[in-house]
Amino acid sequence: MSKLTRDPKTITRWDTEADVVVVGLGIAGAAAALEASRAGAETVVLERAGGGGGTSSMSGGVLYLGGGTALQKACGFEDSAEEMFKYLMAACGPSPDEAKMRLYCDGSVELYDWIVAQGVPFKETHYLGCSGEPPTDDGLVFSGSERHHPFCDIAVPAPRGHVPKIEHQGGPLLMQKLCEAVDASPAEVHTNTRCTALVQEADGHVIGVLAEHFGQETAIRARRGVILTTGGFVLNDEMMRQHAPGGLKCSVRVAAEGDDGSGIRLGVAAGAATLHMDAVSISLPATQPWGLKRGILVNAQGQRFINEDTYYGRLGEWALFHHEGRAWLVVDDEVFEKPDYPRELAAVGETPAELEAELGLPPGSLEATLALYNRHAEKREDPVFHKLPEYVKPLTKPPFGAFDCTVEDSLYAAFTLGGLHTDPDGHVLDPAGDPIPGLFGAGRATSGLSVGSYSSGLSLGDGAFFGRRAGRCAAGR
Amino acid sequence: MSKLTRDPKTITRWDTEADVVVVGLGIAGAAAALEASRAGAETVVLERAGGGGGTSSMSGGVLYLGGGTALQKACGFEDSAEEMFKYLMAACGPSPDEAKMRLYCDGSVELYDWIVAQGVPFKETHYLGCSGEPPTDDGLVFSGSERHHPFCDIAVPAPRGHVPKIEHQGGPLLMQKLCEAVDASPAEVHTNTRCTALVQEADGHVIGVLAEHFGQETAIRARRGVILTTGGFVLNDEMMRQHAPGGLKCSVRVAAEGDDGSGIRLGVAAGAATLHMDAVSISLPATQPWGLKRGILVNAQGQRFINEDTYYGRLGEWALFHHEGRAWLVVDDEVFEKPDYPRELAAVGETPAELEAELGLPPGSLEATLALYNRHAEKREDPVFHKLPEYVKPLTKPPFGAFDCTVEDSLYAAFTLGGLHTDPDGHVLDPAGDPIPGLFGAGRATSGLSVGSYSSGLSLGDGAFFGRRAGRCAAGR
Repeated sequence: MSKLTRDPKTITRWDTEADVVVVGLGIAGAAAALEASRAGAETVVLERAGGGGGTSSMSGGVLYLGGGTALQKACGFEDSAEEMFKYLMAACGPSPDEAKMRLYCDGSVELYDWIVAQGVPFKETHYLGCSGEPPTDDGLVFSGSERHHPFCDIAVPAPRGHVPKIEHQGGPLLMQKLCEAVDASPAEVHTNTRCTALVQEADGHVIGVLAEHFGQETAIRARRGVILTTGGFVLNDEMMRQHAPGGLKCSVRVAAEGDDGSGIRLGVAAGAATLHMDAVSISLPATQPWGLKRGILVNAQGQRFINEDTYYGRLGEWALFHHEGRAWLVVDDEVFEKPDYPRELAAVGETPAELEAELGLPPGSLEATLALYNRHAEKREDPVFHKLPEYVKPLTKPPFGAFDCTVEDSLYAAFTLGGLHTDPDGHVLDPAGDPIPGLFGAGRATSGLSVGSYSSGLSLGDGAFFGRRAGRCAAGR
Repeated sequence: MSKLTRDPKTITRWDTEADVVVVGLGIAGAAAALEASRAGAETVVLERAGGGGGTSSMSGGVLYLGGGTALQKACGFEDSAEEMFKYLMAACGPSPDEAKMRLYCDGSVELYDWIVAQGVPFKETHYLGCSGEPPTDDGLVFSGSERHHPFCDIAVPAPRGHVPKIEHQGGPLLMQKLCEAVDASPAEVHTNTRCTALVQEADGHVIGVLAEHFGQETAIRARRGVILTTGGFVLNDEMMRQHAPGGLKCSVRVAAEGDDGSGIRLGVAAGAATLHMDAVSISLPATQPWGLKRGILVNAQGQRFINEDTYYGRLGEWALFHHEGRAWLVVDDEVFEKPDYPRELAAVGETPAELEAELGLPPGSLEATLALYNRHAEKREDPVFHKLPEYVKPLTKPPFGAFDCTVEDSLYAAFTLGGLHTDPDGHVLDPAGDPIPGLFGAGRATSGLSVGSYSSGLSLGDGAFFGRRAGRCAAGR
C-alpha cells in the first residue's frame, strides 16, 4: 500500500483521540480549528513547524473581501456581493468554481466581522495609490485588476483588499492574532508534529492519521474528520516539475518551508481528485512605482502583450505562461523615475532602434511597437491593449531605457493555486464527485477561488472562509 | 467508499478469472493484450464498444518512430535515437519524462518491426509535401516541426511519421490488423463490457474489476494485474471544464465515444497521481495546402505570434492557449490559392488598412505587422519568428484577405494529453511515486511522451510502446 495511507488493521493503539484533527496551522487551519472547537468538537491541530502561522504569516496579510464590508462602508465605498461576484468570475482564471464563488461573495461581509472579532485590527482608512500592500497602515486598498481592462467594463470597481493595521507586511500580525485566538480556544495545538499518513478503512473512511514528533510515530484517531490545511507545493521541486514547470523557472519562491504539497499527496493517496495543478500565482512587480505603468512591456519579439496597468499578479502570469518569461519594461526619459526605483536599467539607447539592438530584439520590432503605441498615445488612447488614459503618454523623450523583467531577474512564483478538489463544505472529493468520508481540506492544499490571473488577498480569504466551513462541517454542525 | 473502487469483502463470487485484465481495446490495449497473452498470461480484454479499435481507429494512423527504422532506411533517410531524443525532449512540451523518452527512442526501431510483424503494411516510399497524413499511400512523412524553428537547430531533422499503406486515414487499417492479431492470440475479448470499478484491498492491492455487460454486473478477478487503456477525456465536458477548459471551446473534438476519462477516474479513486491534466493537443490546419504558409497568422491585436510553417498541432496550441483562440491567416492575392482551399475568406480588403478594419483589429495594428514583416521578407528573412526562407515573401499584392482561424471556426481539440502517472513499465504510481500494486496503465489514460506542442504519431506510438511494456510487466515477465 502507499506510504501515505495506512490500513487500520496495522494500528495497535491510538496515542491520541479527538473528534477533529486539523493538519497545518496557517490561516485555513486556524479558521478550521476555531470553528470546530467552538462547535463543541474536541479538536487537535498538528503543525510541523515549531509554531503556527505558516506561509500566511509570511504574506502581506491582504484579505480579498467585499460586498459592503464594515471597512468598505467606513471608508465610503459602495460594493455589492453581485459586483464582487462578477469581477471574481471574470478575473479568477479560466473556470472558477461558481458555487464556491457565490458563497464566498455572499459571506464576505460576515467573514470580515469574524476576522475582526478574532482580534485583528483594521484602520478605517483607505490608500489607493498602489495595488496590494500599502506602504502605510491604511486598511483598504485595491488588490486586483478591478479598475483595469477588461474588468472595469464587467463589474463596478471597488477596493477589496483588507489589510491589518500595521506598517509593512500585515501577515505576521494577522496570524499572530488568529493563533492567539486558537490558543484561547478549546483546540489543542501539537507543534513540531508532521502528519505522515492517513489511516483509511477498506471502505474508504479516513479515521485518523499517523504523525511524527521528533522522530517518534504517533497514531491519532479522528472520530469525525481530518482537515488537511497544509498549503501548496511551490517548494517541492519534483511536484513543480511535474505539474507547473514554468513556476520552477522563477528565481524567487515565497513560501514557508511547509509548502511541499504534503497534504495534497496525502489526499491523492486516499483517492482524492485534484484540480488546476498547473496554476501558479506569478508576480511581476515591474510597474511599481505606478508612474512606470506609463512604460510598455514587450516580449522577446519586441511586441506588447498586455495592458501594463493591470495587476502585477496578472502581468507575471502573462509574461511567464504566454511569453516564455521574456519581458522588458521600456520607458523614455520622462517615465524613468530613478529615485523611486530600486533597480537598474538593463539597457539604454538614444533611439528606439539603439535600445532594440542593445536588448537583442529583432531589427525594427521595438521601433514598430513604439511607433504604433505613440500614434495612439498622442490621443491618450490604447486601442490595442486598453491601458487607462491616465497611464498613456507618448514615449518620445530620449534616452530610452528598459528594465529586465525576465524570469531570471524579476518574476517570482508566489504560490501554487491547484490542489485537492473539495466541495463548498470542505469535503475532499473523489473523481466521481463523492466525498471521501472523514476527509476535509481548505486553503492552498485545495483548489481555491482563483485558478489563475490572481488578485491579492484571495488565498488568505478563501483559506479563512472555507477553513471555517470545513471546521464546522467536520465538527458535525 | 467511492463508487469507483470496491472493497473485496463485498464480492461474493468472481464471474471470470484471469491473470491479466486489460480495460479498453485501442492501440495501447491491443499491444498490452498481445504481449501479456504471448508471455503466457491468461488475458481478458474488456471493451465497452461493440468491437475493438477505439479512438486509434479514428486517427490518421501515423506512428511517430525513428532512430533508423527499416522504413526510414528503405526510403534513404538517416536517423539516430539520439537525434530523435533531442527533437522530442525539445518538442514535447515543458517537462517530458526523460526516462520514458530515452526508452522510447532506443526502442523505436524494434517497435516498427513489431508493428509490421502484426500484419500492418507500410509502403517503402516517402511523401514530403505535407505534414502528417499524406494524400497518397506513401509510408513516411514529416509529422512534427522537425524542419522548423527552433527544432531544426536543436536536432538533425528526419521524417518519422510512419503511415500504414492505404490512401486516406491509416487508423482503421492499423487497428484492423492489430485487432486481428489480438483475435488470433490467446487473449479473450469481451465486447460491450464496461469496467465500472476497481476491486481494491485495504492494503492498496488491485485484485480485479467490476464490469457491466448489457446491464449485468460481473466481477472479474485479475491474478496479476489490471491494465487501464481507456483513452483520454476529451468527450467528458465536466472533466474538460475542470482540467482543460480551453479545449472545451473548440468546435470539433475528434474521439471515440469512450474518451470520457473513465480509466483515469478509476485510477485516481484507487489513489493514483495524475500528470499534465491541462494539456490538450489542439490542431489548427490553417496552413494546408502549404502555399498558405506564406501568409501570416495574427492574433486579435493584429500581431504575429509564431512561425507559420511550424506543425499544425503547435499552431493550434499557441493560438488557443496563448492567444485566446483568436487568430486569422492573412494572405495577399499571390498567396491565396482558392482552387485548393476548402474554405472561404472571412474578410477582404484592397489595402492592409481596409482588411484590418474589416476584421475589427485595432487601427494600425495589422498595417504595422505587415510593414515589419515585408521589410524583412524583401530579403527572404524573418528575424522575428524564423519562418523558413522558402515560405517568406512580401505580402504586397492586393487584394488582401484573411481566413478565420478562431476557436469557433477552425480550431479543434484532438485529444487530451494528461492522465495517470505511470512508470516506464506501466505501473500506475501513487503520489509518493510508488506503484499501486496490481494496477497498470498505458495510452491516453496515462500521461504520455508529449505533454504539449504535439507532433503527430506520438500518441499511437507511446500507446503501442508502453502498452507492450505494461502487458509484459503485468504478465510477470
